[in-house]
Amino acid sequence: MSGSTGRPGTPAPIASLHNPRVLAAVRLRDRRRRDETGLTIVDGAREVSRAVGAGVAVEEVFVCPSRLTSDEARSALEALVRAGVRPWQVTPAVLDKVAFGERSEGLVAVVRIPDTSLDRLERLGLPPEPLIGVVESVEKPGNLGAILRSADGAGLDALIAAEPRTDLFNPNVIRASLGTVFTVRLAAASTAATLAWLRARQVRIVAARPDARHLASETDLRGSVALVLGSESEGLSEAWDAPDVVPVRLPMLGVADSLNVAAAAAVLFYEARRQRGMPTA
Amino acid sequence: MSGSTGRPGTPAPIASLHNPRVLAAVRLRDRRRRDETGLTIVDGAREVSRAVGAGVAVEEVFVCPSRLTSDEARSALEALVRAGVRPWQVTPAVLDKVAFGERSEGLVAVVRIPDTSLDRLERLGLPPEPLIGVVESVEKPGNLGAILRSADGAGLDALIAAEPRTDLFNPNVIRASLGTVFTVRLAAASTAATLAWLRARQVRIVAARPDARHLASETDLRGSVALVLGSESEGLSEAWDAPDVVPVRLPMLGVADSLNVAAAAAVLFYEARRQRGMPTA
Repeated sequence: MSGSTGRPGTPAPIASLHNPRVLAAVRLRDRRRRDETGLTIVDGAREVSRAVGAGVAVEEVFVCPSRLTSDEARSALEALVRAGVRPWQVTPAVLDKVAFGERSEGLVAVVRIPDTSLDRLERLGLPPEPLIGVVESVEKPGNLGAILRSADGAGLDALIAAEPRTDLFNPNVIRASLGTVFTVRLAAASTAATLAWLRARQVRIVAARPDARHLASETDLRGSVALVLGSESEGLSEAWDAPDVVPVRLPMLGVADSLNVAAAAAVLFYEARRQRGMPTA
Repeated sequence: MSGSTGRPGTPAPIASLHNPRVLAAVRLRDRRRRDETGLTIVDGAREVSRAVGAGVAVEEVFVCPSRLTSDEARSALEALVRAGVRPWQVTPAVLDKVAFGERSEGLVAVVRIPDTSLDRLERLGLPPEPLIGVVESVEKPGNLGAILRSADGAGLDALIAAEPRTDLFNPNVIRASLGTVFTVRLAAASTAATLAWLRARQVRIVAARPDARHLASETDLRGSVALVLGSESEGLSEAWDAPDVVPVRLPMLGVADSLNVAAAAAVLFYEARRQRGMPTA
């Protein structure tokens, strides 16, 4: 039986689709199981590398050596091994069972879901004049993933999901974000807690609204600023209809009255970046 | 049998899931069937309204009166009737069968796929200094839909899908675009034909590339300009690596080296809109 442990260096990889570790990993596709265990599943070389680079606790790694064809996947594995993780070798059939999404790059990890409290943002430390993104009631994992990539690219200091309608570490968010869900400073909170937190820190609150008078590009987005976007189906909740919330809009020159929420977030984040200039090291 | 024709005003709606018109509509979810017939299926009130408003030929409409709850859906139906279309009344079960996607608003149409040749762009007429978007090898219907919404919002004069890897009137593109796929001047062509067309019209070609020296916000995007984006997986094909193609980049300040393609398109389209000012009527 020693040949079936699946540890590298031992002759036989895990070949059984009913192996308890494999089954436990597969069950993490289920949100309830992720909530119960505090674990999620990460598929893809870049995604795993970024989780490891961000110091996320890796619980299990499944590797299929014959599928590990890219340099990126091999360096992800090396980073894991350096971080003290002992991967399980698996057969292609077992990898296919644990892999999530279309493209598979030979390794899948089970990781501990990071803390997403507003307190943690504080502990991580924010610059004196932070640029913060807020997305309310975001629902589609693909949109949240794209928003995280834009937050990463535009150099946001934090992203807050207010009343999210998807769990932030849903495997589809992880994939769609290309792993930036682990590297962007990310919090989830109620809208009330988000507003209170921004106000306590005297962050200027700028909210995208189709009926705003001023264009975002005509509004000063420098200094300590939060850029807030509502959901596509319902817009922003009433809590944002407050005298200290500055409404801005994007030009809408065609027949539709709104952009895809991830597109609107990208435009706003990058408009703020343009106005603020590149960060100084 | 006269009670089963499904025409409004007659007592009985189409109730059979095997009704040949219903089956023909359902088959349009299949790309091959769309290619064979030149027809596609449009679900949703806004989507149908925008198709009708754009003068798209409507072949069939299925309406379930008890599901037609929104004002938007009722006005879409009125617009259809004004346009001379005679809708088929269907039962909720039949509507569920023809409806595409999660949300259903009580009506589904079968429409003729518009011509997407570059010649048609010409015939539709472009302003003397057009702003044109080009997306190469776009693959995901959700991304193409979001790009169409951004093209609509930013007031692009045309969008060209070069070597698209999805059919432009895929029902998922129609939904994700909220029907703007019918209202944006849209063409599909090979990369070679697209380049030749742009060059013949002396349109300045500006391509997003991660390795470009200059930021898009530092580059003049006024005048006659095409903004070109490559696919996420492969970037731009070699044809765009030409002396008359101006490379630009967006700031990438985090760990990732690219944005989601629809996010990048939105940022570029709106940066051009900002520089160009609002269009004069």
